[in-house]
Amino acid sequence: MAVRTPGDYYVSDVYSEPVKLANAKLQLVNSSPDPPAIADESSIDGVPIVSTNPPNIAIKTSNCVCDKSESQQPLERQRTIDTLQSTFVPNKPLFNDDVIIFLITPTYTRPTQMPDMTRLGQTLRLVPNVFWIVVEDAHNQSKAVENLLRRTMIPYVHLLGPRPPTHMDQRSGRGVSNRLKAFEWLRANYGGTNQKGVIYFADDDNAYDVRLFDEMRDTQIVSMFPVGLISTLGLSTPIVNHKTGKIIGFHDPFIGRRKFAVDMAGFAVNLQFFLQSKKATMPYKVGYEEDYFLKSLDVKIWQLEPKAKNCTEVLVWHTKTKPGDKPNHNMMIKVTNYNETNLPSLYQNVMET
Amino acid sequence: MAVRTPGDYYVSDVYSEPVKLANAKLQLVNSSPDPPAIADESSIDGVPIVSTNPPNIAIKTSNCVCDKSESQQPLERQRTIDTLQSTFVPNKPLFNDDVIIFLITPTYTRPTQMPDMTRLGQTLRLVPNVFWIVVEDAHNQSKAVENLLRRTMIPYVHLLGPRPPTHMDQRSGRGVSNRLKAFEWLRANYGGTNQKGVIYFADDDNAYDVRLFDEMRDTQIVSMFPVGLISTLGLSTPIVNHKTGKIIGFHDPFIGRRKFAVDMAGFAVNLQFFLQSKKATMPYKVGYEEDYFLKSLDVKIWQLEPKAKNCTEVLVWHTKTKPGDKPNHNMMIKVTNYNETNLPSLYQNVMET
Repeated sequence: MAVRTPGDYYVSDVYSEPVKLANAKLQLVNSSPDPPAIADESSIDGVPIVSTNPPNIAIKTSNCVCDKSESQQPLERQRTIDTLQSTFVPNKPLFNDDVIIFLITPTYTRPTQMPDMTRLGQTLRLVPNVFWIVVEDAHNQSKAVENLLRRTMIPYVHLLGPRPPTHMDQRSGRGVSNRLKAFEWLRANYGGTNQKGVIYFADDDNAYDVRLFDEMRDTQIVSMFPVGLISTLGLSTPIVNHKTGKIIGFHDPFIGRRKFAVDMAGFAVNLQFFLQSKKATMPYKVGYEEDYFLKSLDVKIWQLEPKAKNCTEVLVWHTKTKPGDKPNHNMMIKVTNYNETNLPSLYQNVMET
Repeated sequence: MAVRTPGDYYVSDVYSEPVKLANAKLQLVNSSPDPPAIADESSIDGVPIVSTNPPNIAIKTSNCVCDKSESQQPLERQRTIDTLQSTFVPNKPLFNDDVIIFLITPTYTRPTQMPDMTRLGQTLRLVPNVFWIVVEDAHNQSKAVENLLRRTMIPYVHLLGPRPPTHMDQRSGRGVSNRLKAFEWLRANYGGTNQKGVIYFADDDNAYDVRLFDEMRDTQIVSMFPVGLISTLGLSTPIVNHKTGKIIGFHDPFIGRRKFAVDMAGFAVNLQFFLQSKKATMPYKVGYEEDYFLKSLDVKIWQLEPKAKNCTEVLVWHTKTKPGDKPNHNMMIKVTNYNETNLPSLYQNVMET
C-alpha cells in the first residue's frame, strides 16, 4: 500500500510559483463576446493540472482591486473577482490543511446518467474543498463521464469498480463493487497520512441541498441526518432524544434485522476513523449495505453525531429519475437528407460513452 | 400597465453607496469555525435588499488583494475573492446594461417539489445575470418555496398563477396559467423599457447543463436547441441543414399538426421581441402549448437561431423525478416517546408548505 504524507508533491508544486498565483486576477464579464476562458492545462510529469476558474471568467492580470481603470466601470457591466486559483491534478489525491469531503459516487451508463451526473457535478461546484471519487460499474472508462469530470472542475479521481460475475444476482445489488474500489483507493492514498476528511456516499441520482455539506464537515466519528423520499414513510431519520441530543434509534420503512436502519445518503464518516478501522467493508447484500458497513466500523450508537439541527431538517432526498429512452437511430435516419443535417453528429455526441 | 425605465429606482439605490460596494471584500474561509455569514438584509421602503454573497463567505474589509497580511496565509487555508456585491430587491424587477436571462418556472406543491427546486436553484447560482420568475399553481404562496428563493440568493419574483376552474381537465395540462401570469408580469414591468433579455421556460424537474445559458444569451429573436430524454425518440431537436446552418424542420416524437414540433425546454425568446409581439400567448391545449406560443409570436422558420453547436449537443434533458410519498404521520407517532424526540419538529418542517 502506497503511503503518502500531506503535500509530498502536490502542495510543493503549487508553491513553486506563489507570486504568479497570488497575483492572478479574474474578471467576470457577463455576456462577453469573447469565447469563455479555456482551462489552463499545463502538466506535472505528463499529468495535466487543471485550474479551477469560476465559470465564464476571463483572466486579466492586475495586482489590486482598487485600480482606477476598473472602478470606473459601471456596476452592471462587471463584477470583479480576485482570487487565488486552486489547482488539482486529475486522478491524484488532494492534500491540504482543511477538512476535505470525499464524495463516493457509484455510476453506470444509462440514458439518464448524463443529466444526473451533470446536476450532481454542478451542485458540487458550490461546495468548498470536496474531492469527488467517481467509480463506474464498467470495465472501461466512459469518455462522457471523463469529459464531464474535466468540465466540472472539481478535484476528482475516475475509477472502475465493475460488479464481479459472482455478484450479478438481484440480492447483491448495485454500487457495492464501486464503493469497495473507492475504499481501496482511499486506503492506498491516505493511509498513513493525517489528512483531515469526511467520507460521504453520494449516489448520482439523489438531490443534495448544499447546506448538507456544511453539516457533515465536522464529523468526528460518524454523523447522521434525515433523508427525504424514502419509500412508504416518505423519509428515513435517526430518532434523537431532544433532552440528551443523542441518537436513540431509527425511523425507517425497513428495520429488518438492522442495528443501523439508515439510508446510504443518511450518514458521513470521519476519514481517519475509517482508515483506522482496518476491517471496514461493505457486503454484497441488498438492504444491509449501510448496516454491515457501520457495524464493520465498530461504531457505537452513543457515538453517533446527529446533524441538520438535531435531525429536524431534510437536506438530502432519495430522488429517483424516471428511466428514459436512448435516441432511436432507426427513426432518425428516416429523416429526409439525414446526412446533410445535424442529426448524425447529434446522435454520435449523445451516444458517446 | 405600469411602465418602468431601466434603473428608475433600482440602480440608483445601488449607486447610493458606490464606495462601500467597490471596497467590499469577501474572504472565503473553508471549514471556518465561525458561523456562515448571514445575508445583510437592510431595506428600501420596507422591502428587504438581499446581498448575494457566494456561499460560506465571511466579509472582511480591505482595498487591495496584495495586502501583505493576506498573501502570507497558506494557500490551503483560504481563497481570497474581491468582488462587487450584487444586490437585488425580492419581487422587484431587475435592470442593468447586460442581457438578463428570465427563467419562467411553473411549480406546484408535491413531495418532490423541494428536491427539484433545490437542484434547479443551485444550478442557477452558477449562471450570471439571471432573473427567476417562479409561479405557483396555487392561491396562496408556499412558505417553503419563499424560503428556498431567499436562500438561493438569485434575483427572483414569486408569483401565483392558479389553474382556472375552467381548465382543470386533462386536455388543458399544467403550467399554462403559471406561464401566462409570468407574461403579464414581464409586460407590466419591462414593457416600454429597453432592457436586454432572453425568456426561457425552465420547468422545475428538468436537468440543465449551465452551458445552455451561455448558448441562449445572445438570442436575437427565437433560438432553438436539442432536448434529451423526450419520450420514445429519446430526444427532440430542430433539424439543421449543415451547409446553410438554418433550421429546416423538427425531429420529435410528436409532430401532429405542429409547425414548431419542439419541447418547452427547447427554445428561448428575445425579451424585446416578446414584448413587441402584443398578441403573444399560450393556449390551454396539451401538446400544442409550444407550437401555438411560437405561432402567436409570428416568428418564421428561417428566423430561428440554432444553438448548441448547430444543434449537435444536448445541454438540457426532460428528466422526470419519480413521484414520492409524503412523510407518514400515523406511522411516526407510533414511535415510543414520540413527543420527546426530534420527530414532531422534523414532521412540521418537512410538511411546511
